[in-house]
Amino acid sequence: MKHGADSAGHVPLGAGGEFDIVRAMLERWGPLATGIGDDAALVQLPGIQLVVSTDTSVEDVHFRTAWLTHREIGYRATAAALSDLAAMAAMPIGVFLALTLPGADVAQAGEIADGVGECLAAADARVLGGDVSRGGSLSLTLTVMGTTSHPLTRGGARPGDRLYVTGRLGGPAAALREFQAGRVPAPVFRDRFCHPVPRLKESRWLADHGARAAIDISDGLVADARHLAAASRAMLHVSGEKIPLCDSVSLEDALAGGEEYELLLACPDALDAAAFEREFDLALTEIGDVSGEGEPGVEVTVDGRRVESPAGYDHFEE
Amino acid sequence: MKHGADSAGHVPLGAGGEFDIVRAMLERWGPLATGIGDDAALVQLPGIQLVVSTDTSVEDVHFRTAWLTHREIGYRATAAALSDLAAMAAMPIGVFLALTLPGADVAQAGEIADGVGECLAAADARVLGGDVSRGGSLSLTLTVMGTTSHPLTRGGARPGDRLYVTGRLGGPAAALREFQAGRVPAPVFRDRFCHPVPRLKESRWLADHGARAAIDISDGLVADARHLAAASRAMLHVSGEKIPLCDSVSLEDALAGGEEYELLLACPDALDAAAFEREFDLALTEIGDVSGEGEPGVEVTVDGRRVESPAGYDHFEE
Repeated sequence: MKHGADSAGHVPLGAGGEFDIVRAMLERWGPLATGIGDDAALVQLPGIQLVVSTDTSVEDVHFRTAWLTHREIGYRATAAALSDLAAMAAMPIGVFLALTLPGADVAQAGEIADGVGECLAAADARVLGGDVSRGGSLSLTLTVMGTTSHPLTRGGARPGDRLYVTGRLGGPAAALREFQAGRVPAPVFRDRFCHPVPRLKESRWLADHGARAAIDISDGLVADARHLAAASRAMLHVSGEKIPLCDSVSLEDALAGGEEYELLLACPDALDAAAFEREFDLALTEIGDVSGEGEPGVEVTVDGRRVESPAGYDHFEE
Repeated sequence: MKHGADSAGHVPLGAGGEFDIVRAMLERWGPLATGIGDDAALVQLPGIQLVVSTDTSVEDVHFRTAWLTHREIGYRATAAALSDLAAMAAMPIGVFLALTLPGADVAQAGEIADGVGECLAAADARVLGGDVSRGGSLSLTLTVMGTTSHPLTRGGARPGDRLYVTGRLGGPAAALREFQAGRVPAPVFRDRFCHPVPRLKESRWLADHGARAAIDISDGLVADARHLAAASRAMLHVSGEKIPLCDSVSLEDALAGGEEYELLLACPDALDAAAFEREFDLALTEIGDVSGEGEPGVEVTVDGRRVESPAGYDHFEE
């Protein structure tokens, strides 16, 4: 439910089975739900703007215990949740962990905690509470809470904005393919899959330097660009040849691969990529622009020639 | 993780497999986790005290789809989560719903939403955000958020306090026994199991009238009294013959049955039970006191004779 229907102040959402379910639920709720659909919810309280998001990682849907250690499972679920705060340029306060443990995983609860803790320590966040329950599948729901004075949203992109992406893409997709084939991925790909870094400080820098819309790349660059386009009611153009690739991955991996946890952002002015890279030791690359023409959507070209853009990952489509 | 270790400001906790897991995780986290262990977390922000709790309901652990409609599943998970706000005397703001859906339950997402909405409307709360994911078991994690100026905590009971309980106990246990035997429970019991009411307004009234410690009865009266005793470092005495019973249930059902979502509270002065009952159409009954003698614990007597007090429900004990 990171996307919502275009009513009751919800953020307009893209296509897909998951969003059909969300739409059905929002219809039932009517005025009981408001402002649904960005990476995180903005909760305006007296004197403070809270940013809150909830994110579930389920065994055999988001990860396999054959691929990741329990420490990595804890780390990765926490990073995925904190990445939603990064997409809003929020400063994290802490997390609530709802952990569902099959009997076979009870002995590894401490290792899961170590991974959660590793990610929180790096993000300067804390564990505020949680719940432990027995269940048939290992599952972690992280609810993350932060604050912001100037949130980045999905709906802030405007015609003429430049599109930027942080980091180098395609690594998680390459790792996933190796895992699925029963092989151990090369370390650079495995690390991108097992140890993503929520771009928290980076996004606050970007917001401070003029960025006005952002989304984290969890479903895939093109799929998430479509969410940004739908929320901003804009046409996005991505130049495929400009996308920075992780090692020797294919453009297809960079366009379609999910779980990058890098940021896609829109900014009216040119950003100082060199200064960003010096500060964070991370690439910042201009990959396209907001054209503003036509229906909301995403067009991908390679050297000026239009290419078919791939669908993103959707748990509810086979 | 509604209970924590006695370090880093955590609330002292009782025994049991679930709490052993929490203890193991808190040890790993060290200073990364603070103040864990009450019904909900208190998050002090500039000018406002937030109360936040997260609660998971898993198919075949907390409910069975053979027993409840999908609407009831949504309602009950929401009521269970809001009950943690009631235990802190907090005013709800809203909830985040992380819903994990097996393919077979996708068509019922709207009914689940209806149940969530029914409970929220009655509590004057809203849906603030969420996440929908595919998974092997139907699971709902509700993270609830509220505010309070004067929280009730588990650690506030003092020697000489009177113990009170809201409502009449034992109905959910009686319903559960019928369900487990393959029978349909009598409506009064079924309703107590399927349609618990979070005592939100009631708890604020009780806090306003002098109550200074509370816990919601989710594990069972005696088990939750033990949590209160541990957190308050006090000895609690419960007079079994005073416990208000739901219809003709046994005392055992009232002592051991979980998922009541009534409140157990401690108050230094006598509460006006008649005024409470007029206001809320709900029983308020004095059932014992805080003796303050001996090790923290719970003693149950019937007509002055000590009885064995039952263990509560723990998912991690067979």
